[in-house]
Parts: sequence; C-alpha cells; structure tokens
Amino acid sequence: MSITPQPYQHIQTIGILGGGQLGMMLAESAMQLGYTCIFLEDSPNCPASRYGKVYSTQQLADFAKHADVFTLEFENTPVKTCEWLASLSQNVDSGSFNNHSFNSDDGKKFGMFPPPQALEVAQDRLKEKTLFNQLGIATVPFRAVDNLNELKTACDELGLPLVLKTSRGGYDGKGQFVIQDRADIETAWRELGGAVTGDGNLTSTPAPLIAEGFIDFSREVSLIATRGQDGQIRCFDLVENDHHQGILATTRAPAVGASHLQALAESAITTLMTHLDYVGTLTLELFVSKDGDGKDTLLANEIAPRVHNSGHFSIEGAVTSQFENHIRAVVGLPLGDTDNVHPSIMVNVLGEYPDLAEVLSIDGVHYHTYHKEERENRKIAHLTLMPNDVANLEATLHNVVAVLPNKMGLDA
Amino acid sequence: MSITPQPYQHIQTIGILGGGQLGMMLAESAMQLGYTCIFLEDSPNCPASRYGKVYSTQQLADFAKHADVFTLEFENTPVKTCEWLASLSQNVDSGSFNNHSFNSDDGKKFGMFPPPQALEVAQDRLKEKTLFNQLGIATVPFRAVDNLNELKTACDELGLPLVLKTSRGGYDGKGQFVIQDRADIETAWRELGGAVTGDGNLTSTPAPLIAEGFIDFSREVSLIATRGQDGQIRCFDLVENDHHQGILATTRAPAVGASHLQALAESAITTLMTHLDYVGTLTLELFVSKDGDGKDTLLANEIAPRVHNSGHFSIEGAVTSQFENHIRAVVGLPLGDTDNVHPSIMVNVLGEYPDLAEVLSIDGVHYHTYHKEERENRKIAHLTLMPNDVANLEATLHNVVAVLPNKMGLDA
Repeated sequence: MSITPQPYQHIQTIGILGGGQLGMMLAESAMQLGYTCIFLEDSPNCPASRYGKVYSTQQLADFAKHADVFTLEFENTPVKTCEWLASLSQNVDSGSFNNHSFNSDDGKKFGMFPPPQALEVAQDRLKEKTLFNQLGIATVPFRAVDNLNELKTACDELGLPLVLKTSRGGYDGKGQFVIQDRADIETAWRELGGAVTGDGNLTSTPAPLIAEGFIDFSREVSLIATRGQDGQIRCFDLVENDHHQGILATTRAPAVGASHLQALAESAITTLMTHLDYVGTLTLELFVSKDGDGKDTLLANEIAPRVHNSGHFSIEGAVTSQFENHIRAVVGLPLGDTDNVHPSIMVNVLGEYPDLAEVLSIDGVHYHTYHKEERENRKIAHLTLMPNDVANLEATLHNVVAVLPNKMGLDA
Repeated sequence: MSITPQPYQHIQTIGILGGGQLGMMLAESAMQLGYTCIFLEDSPNCPASRYGKVYSTQQLADFAKHADVFTLEFENTPVKTCEWLASLSQNVDSGSFNNHSFNSDDGKKFGMFPPPQALEVAQDRLKEKTLFNQLGIATVPFRAVDNLNELKTACDELGLPLVLKTSRGGYDGKGQFVIQDRADIETAWRELGGAVTGDGNLTSTPAPLIAEGFIDFSREVSLIATRGQDGQIRCFDLVENDHHQGILATTRAPAVGASHLQALAESAITTLMTHLDYVGTLTLELFVSKDGDGKDTLLANEIAPRVHNSGHFSIEGAVTSQFENHIRAVVGLPLGDTDNVHPSIMVNVLGEYPDLAEVLSIDGVHYHTYHKEERENRKIAHLTLMPNDVANLEATLHNVVAVLPNKMGLDA
C-alpha cells in the first residue's frame, strides 16, 4: 500500500530490556500483531520466558543482533545500554524521520523507545521534579540534600514532617525516611545519607538525597499515555491507586469524580512527552490536592518511562491496552482508542496465590498469573474485575478480597 | 482451601491435538491462568508453535507423556487417538468424579475433553443429524445415500434442488454437490459417490453420502456453549454468520433480532451436551427458518466439538472468551460469564494480509494474526470490531472492508 516502506513492515523482532510481567504482557500484545519478542534478563525463568527467548545481560551483543527495535520494561536499565542500542540505528541517514532512530535499510535497527533521555530523568527524583517545575508542572516543594546541614535547612524551609528519599533507586516504599521531628534528622541522615562527621559533612559517598515537603492530598491518581513516532498522543482516563504497605493494591479505572482534572493531567503529560521526544507508553503519578483557592489540583509525583501496574486494567477495561499501544508506538504503527470499555478495578495478588476455583467462580473476574514463585508481598498475579453491570463492581471486589490470602487491608 | 485436591491444582500441562490458530488462542487463555500447552501437530511452524512445544504425530507417546490432560482444536483427529488418550486416565479408580476421566494420583492423566463419543458424532454428518432427530432437535430433511438408486429415491422424496454431501470429511464447502435438476444426478454421484455400473450400483467403495433437502432460511446463526466437569453449562448469545464462497466472512455478536430463538437453541445444545457427557466448548450451527405456522424456528445443521471461528468475537466481545471457558472446563475450573461486553463484528482475513497501519488507524479494531503464509482464501488472521459506541459498528466495518485486500463480497 505504502510507497515508502514503513518501520512496522520491516520489524519482525522486538528486543525488550527486562523479562518480568510487564515484558510478558507486552509480548502478549506484540504476538497478536505478528511480532516476536526477545528479552534481556538475568533470570532465565522470568515471566516473559514463556513468550520468547531470554538473553542474559552477558549476552547483550547477541540480544542486540537478533532484534530490529528495542524497548524496555525495567526502568533501572543502565542509560548507557539504552544509548548504545539507540546508537545502532543512528549511523544511517536515509529514511530518518525523527531525531533518535530510523533506518530504512533492511535488516538494520529501528531505534530504542523510549529515548534514553527519558530514562535518565525517570531514574533520578531530583532531575525529574526539577524538570516538572521547569515545564510548569506543579510538584510538592522539594530540596536537594547533599549533606546534613542542607538537610537541616530543608527541614527549616519545608517544615516537618518531610520525607527524605534517595534520588536514585528505591522502590515500593524502600529508600525513604519520614522525618516527623527534628530529633529524627540525624537518624534519617545516617540511614540514607551515609556516615556523618562532627561538622555535619560526609565521610562516605552517599546517594544524593531529596527532601520533599508533606502535603495534604486526598488521593493518588495516575495518567497513562502513549506517544507515537508521529507525535500523536493518546491518554487513558485518570485512574485511582490505593496502596498497602507502600505497594499498589488496587487501581480503579476510571478514577471516580476526577474528570475535572483530566485536562490538567493531559496537559502535563503532553508537555513532558513532547519535551522528551518520548515514544511509547509513559505513566505520570499525581496527587490530588488543593490549590491556594481551595480548588482541586494535581501535584506531579513521578514518571515511569514504561507501561505500569496501574494500567493493567486496560487489557480488558480499555478499547486498546497500554501494552498494545506501547508496542504500536515502538514499531511505528498508529495508536488505538484509549476509552474505557466499562469501569473496572485491578487488584494485585501479593505473596500468595488464591485458590483459582474460588476466584474464577466470581463472575467478571479476569485472572493474569505471572508464573512466579510465592514470596512475601511479591507481585505474583493480578485480577481485573469488570462485571458487565457496573452496579456489581464493589460487590465483586468484596467477594474477591474474601478469597485472597493477602487481603492488603481491603477487608476492614 | 479444598480438602480434596482438585484437578486444576494437579494440572500443569495441557496437551492439545492440533496446532492451528484455535490451538494458539486456547494457549493464550491457558497461559494467563498459569497452564503450559503442548501441541500434537505435523507442521512445526504452526500458529501455536509460538506458544508451546510442538510434537509430530509420530511423537504421540512422547506428547502423551508430557501432558496432564488432553483436548483438541482439530475435529478430524482420529477417534482412536482420543480414545487412547482418554484411556490413560481410566485405569485408576480413586478420585473418579465422572465417567470418562479423573485420576487424583499425582503425575497421572486427568482425561480427554471433549469425550471421544462427541468426536465420533461430529465427524459423520449422518450420525450427527440422526442424533439431532433422536433428541428431538429439528434438522433439514435428509436421507442416507449408499448407491445411485438411493440417490434417485432421495431426489423423489426430498424434491429438488437438494445437496449431496460426503458424510465424512469436507470443509468450507468442499465435498458437496447441489443437484438442481434430475439431469445432474449421475454427475453428482460420479463426483462424490464413485464410479457407477450399468445397474446403478458401485464399482468402487465411495464415501457414504447424505442427501439434504433444500430449505428456505433467512440466515445462519451459531450457538457456542461450554459445559464444565460438574455439568454446569454457559451459553453465549446466538451470533449471526455470513459466508463468502463457503467460507465464514463475518460474525455479528449478538445476532440482531434473534433473542426470541435463544431459549430454543440453548435447549438443543443442553440436550446434546448432556447426552454426550460433553466437557468443553461446543458449537452448534443452525438455520433460522419458518415452522408450519410461519413462525421463526431453528434447524440444526452441524456441531463442531471445539472452539469455533464464529466465537472469536468473544476474546474482546464477551466477559469470558470461548477459549478461556474451554480451558476452564478441561482443567476442572468453574466457567465464566458469557455475556456480551458490547456488540461486535468479527471479520476474517482471507488469503492476503492488509496493511497493518491502515487497519489499526480505525478505532475499535482488534487484530489477531495467525502467523501464517498467505494463500488464496486461507484464514490467516481475524479482526474483531468493537468500537465503544455501537452506533459506529457498521461504519467501522465499512472502513475495515475498504482496506482489506480480500473484501469477501462485503464492498458491494
């Protein structure tokens, strides 16, 4: 049909950095469209291993050789690896249609999506929040903290309580310390910042830290959007996330009573994606708070440069899933409709599997296992609840929680 | 949770006879629930090969050894093979909970579903229609035809035109001859029945034939239902099928204006499934015709003892798909809700792939490739159209047909 060959016609194999459940669900979508996936992952029995060949990180060159385009499901992938994969497609000029990736020669590489600069921002809380503010996207107040004195100053300026975080690493609530009281300051610094000398400076090289002011927020929402290689952006509705012990427990899609905030969230993610020349699915986590006039507003917390646990609902709950839209973007296809099909609730299964017959005897429950060993609080499966009659949605959640071994505080 | 171990807890690997697109889509569902699939199939690059190991029919014993339960996606599997696989689980008595399959010993076999007797009926049009009538299920009038004289008698009794068919084999309109006129009788007999001697009897052994009277019917519908190991039956809504050159072109789910026939169809399939002690998904093809009083009624045409092309819509279009319900039945899990999520149209892609970007630029289109080589009129992919606003459904079909290389007569 097309006179110029399009990337989606040249691409057969998508190389995915990481082989967890996100990679597995990306592969499910990619395979329906006709693509093969391979994974760079050091656990040979990872969830994605049932859907394509797994290469260890020692086999990076071999992995790179066997894929036509690259993407990631694990955001702590070294930026240098992504830069190298992106560079494989930059040395031929013909057919280039954006600034980080296209090569129309047969058998060559078609880019790394998202672009490495997005990863670099997402891996560093300080860079991330600084960029949000530079782009006019509101955040909680924050300060960079390089030594104990800066931490004390941050406590003075932001007030207590505040949260001290490592700017890099940390996951599911790890790498954080809540300072309630000035007496906690040195403990917090010792735990996250390194050993402290008499003058308050460092004796070892700590992770750079960020101090974030506490804000009143009513709930946490996230916006998931995908940007195509042609710059087209499609956003899902805002969804609402509830956590248990710092780990996502449920996502309600859409977030009820949040439509007045949709345009603000879409404006923020559009600005970010355009600035980063982003291609693929991006997640923006936000707090619903009040502005100076007491009106609802959003504060950006962080981005995930990938598909996200709060978007799993979209497999059944949206016309096109976050996984399929990510794959479409990576191979250069047009994006699909992100409307909700029906309201749904995604429930994570943490640590221990439920009895499958008990779960599946409840109508409207979709079960997705990750084929993982049980381990305390580990994400090993998720359920999407989408009964046809939305009036049954909360009752369905109630019935599901009753048969989950780890009830994540939802049975109170 | 359960005191007695349930089959779904013992089963890890499902052995599927056949490795085509039906096997592939069964595996997609099975893997989400945590099962592994293996396939018995002589084409090593079959559609299912991306989802599990493929054994050739020469490797039947090895295939049997590596699966815990068996099912099929190819109805022309030899009945003897199915009987042998079923027999593997019949020699231990303990834990038996129905008459064709259960064995609670670890590492043993958990049955063959559907049972071989269902396959035997489905493979023979004469046995099939005879059983329908025995069970009080209306069919077109038919006669067994073993020789030319019987064919002439059938023409007298049923009137012309009539359709002469082989009772075994035949697919997508092959193995059929429409006798319009008495002058066609000998040609039809020569084509399907074998060589004819002077006295009208056979000189070679023909396939047994069946002559079917022509009836006026307004449309073809199908009912897809699944029966669990506990006897529970869940039926999808009737769907409407349109063919092009004898091959399914589109399925509309639900069939519009057919709800007054739903109970009649469900009664027929319930009777059939119960009689056959069926476990799994069964498809019943029916014609919508008029009874003696001029009221709408259904005539049963044939069954497929498996998931069916007219049920592909259910992946997106129903709460639980025909594939997932089949897997649930095979492993002994409760069945899922079969309600429609939204009205949808399934469109087959025959012979030649469309430009993927053109197809996916249309909102509400779900693409499922079968990873097959292009070949005239071959089923190589299907599309499910389910725009969120049902008012756009026919327009979506129009837009899809515009970009399909093989328009299957839908652009007229």
